[in-house]
Amino acid sequence: MSKPLKIAVTPGEPAGIGPDLILKLSQQAWEAQLVVFADTEMLTQRAKQLGLIVDLIPYEDGSTYVQQPGQLLVKHIPLSVPAIAGELNSENGHYVVETLRQACQENIDGTFDAVVTGPVHKGIINKAGISFSGHTEFFANQSNCSDVVMMLATEGLRVCLATTHIPLQYVSKAITPERLDKVIHIIHTDMKLKFGIESPRIYVCGLNPHAGEDGHLGNEEILVITPKLNELREQGINLIGPLPADTIFQPKYLEQADAVLAMYHDQGLPVLKYKGFGASVNITLGLPFIRTSVDHGTAADLAGSGDIDCGSFEKAINKAIKLARKKV
Amino acid sequence: MSKPLKIAVTPGEPAGIGPDLILKLSQQAWEAQLVVFADTEMLTQRAKQLGLIVDLIPYEDGSTYVQQPGQLLVKHIPLSVPAIAGELNSENGHYVVETLRQACQENIDGTFDAVVTGPVHKGIINKAGISFSGHTEFFANQSNCSDVVMMLATEGLRVCLATTHIPLQYVSKAITPERLDKVIHIIHTDMKLKFGIESPRIYVCGLNPHAGEDGHLGNEEILVITPKLNELREQGINLIGPLPADTIFQPKYLEQADAVLAMYHDQGLPVLKYKGFGASVNITLGLPFIRTSVDHGTAADLAGSGDIDCGSFEKAINKAIKLARKKV
Repeated sequence: MSKPLKIAVTPGEPAGIGPDLILKLSQQAWEAQLVVFADTEMLTQRAKQLGLIVDLIPYEDGSTYVQQPGQLLVKHIPLSVPAIAGELNSENGHYVVETLRQACQENIDGTFDAVVTGPVHKGIINKAGISFSGHTEFFANQSNCSDVVMMLATEGLRVCLATTHIPLQYVSKAITPERLDKVIHIIHTDMKLKFGIESPRIYVCGLNPHAGEDGHLGNEEILVITPKLNELREQGINLIGPLPADTIFQPKYLEQADAVLAMYHDQGLPVLKYKGFGASVNITLGLPFIRTSVDHGTAADLAGSGDIDCGSFEKAINKAIKLARKKV
Repeated sequence: MSKPLKIAVTPGEPAGIGPDLILKLSQQAWEAQLVVFADTEMLTQRAKQLGLIVDLIPYEDGSTYVQQPGQLLVKHIPLSVPAIAGELNSENGHYVVETLRQACQENIDGTFDAVVTGPVHKGIINKAGISFSGHTEFFANQSNCSDVVMMLATEGLRVCLATTHIPLQYVSKAITPERLDKVIHIIHTDMKLKFGIESPRIYVCGLNPHAGEDGHLGNEEILVITPKLNELREQGINLIGPLPADTIFQPKYLEQADAVLAMYHDQGLPVLKYKGFGASVNITLGLPFIRTSVDHGTAADLAGSGDIDCGSFEKAINKAIKLARKKV
């Protein structure tokens, strides 16, 4: 019998819905060893609050224990202060980061096959005195990766972003030949290695409306994007574009596209999230391991209520298992 | 018997698919007097090329002739040189603009109930020595309207744009309190007057990713957008937002929204066009008359071929009739 897949799961913010989601998802069977990096007592209390019966089993290195319905393996990481559902507390900021740090390290070391992250609250972590701009940047830093790419995926559509969480007014300046070069190489490489697509077709949006309309509506396409795409095509990368963002998401293109590269956050994600109907998965490309994530926030107001939608977390775990499957 | 509705139709670029579309649409019945502002000979030749039998009837002021299948009323405006399907010719640039000018004037004068525009080619008009940045700006100028608003509509979603055809790098500076004030007043007024919605609910996007995330990702929401929305709320306008563009297009919001106001072109239109599946309608708000338009270009390569999709033109005419119906 082959070794079971080992998936690290970080529920993230303990006052949010992350713990609720993984507890609810523990009620079904998973074809992997799901190991939750969190405080055991917090999970016990939250399960009680939700009326769920979950057997929390301490995780031990080397165990081959595959998750069964109603069970969860837990890698215990202690809270600083007890967590109350719905009440964000910066005193647990260090705890949240510690769960991420340990899950990341296990993946760097290769003892796990993937990490799936629940939602964290950036504001409350920063309030704890920790400079934190997001999971992606944190994992990239810990892995010594200078560049990573954010991909969001839903059935029939994968969107990658050339720039992510920066003010709109800085986007144009951030679209440099160097940035595009790195981003497209990362997408190309990871779609081959992690997704198993031999010659991925990447559809690229322009930066400006109508992709600049031959320079009438901006010239970044002419000066930066098109020359870089041509250069990368000569290296054998399969690129289509730049195309206008309001036409690229048509079925005739999407049927052909293995990924769409949007130049910035609000150019690519509204249609992805509309199509995904609140259940898309965030995948970080460029890391030395597989990382998927939910696409939503902590929703602290719903924590402990049971009124939660597991769709995105469930898809994130399934996607991680699917991507990792190639390794076993 | 009441007077029939009079709809001015401009097929636009004579070498493009505009003439083909209206000729194809003439094969069905319309509950209005459709008057085509174009060259009669060009329409005759194109109909022949497409194998369509169309009775082209010269339009006369005051006629009460309602369109029947296989018929079209034509307000003849002569081409400068014969038009060949698929071959753009700047010598006909003045002709295109003249069709728009006459259709606009009839609507300003109130002799028509609406105008529906087919696609024009901005580049070829400018090549003819005419400064032309689009139908919307042209009609606004001829009507002495300093501000108009572009709306795109499809089943279940109307998207308005605070800025339209400008390079992305200038968007932030264009989002001023004055611009938002004018745009929101125009939307509010036209949705009441033209759409008959008593207290329209307008959902407003932020400018930055995550609507700025409390200033972490840009401060236009804090400095400009939110204060202006609050001011307009006090004037009784029903505004929700600013909300992140990647969450505003969720069913729970869209079910409530009479319109979504996006801050710029590629923030609002990709999802609209994805949802509309190539059949959305462009509506200009703020003009003293009803104007709808197709949402696509001239597609000159398809002109004369018959391989065309009338969806958007058909919807544009239907929308114009529906909006005008309130006047009769």
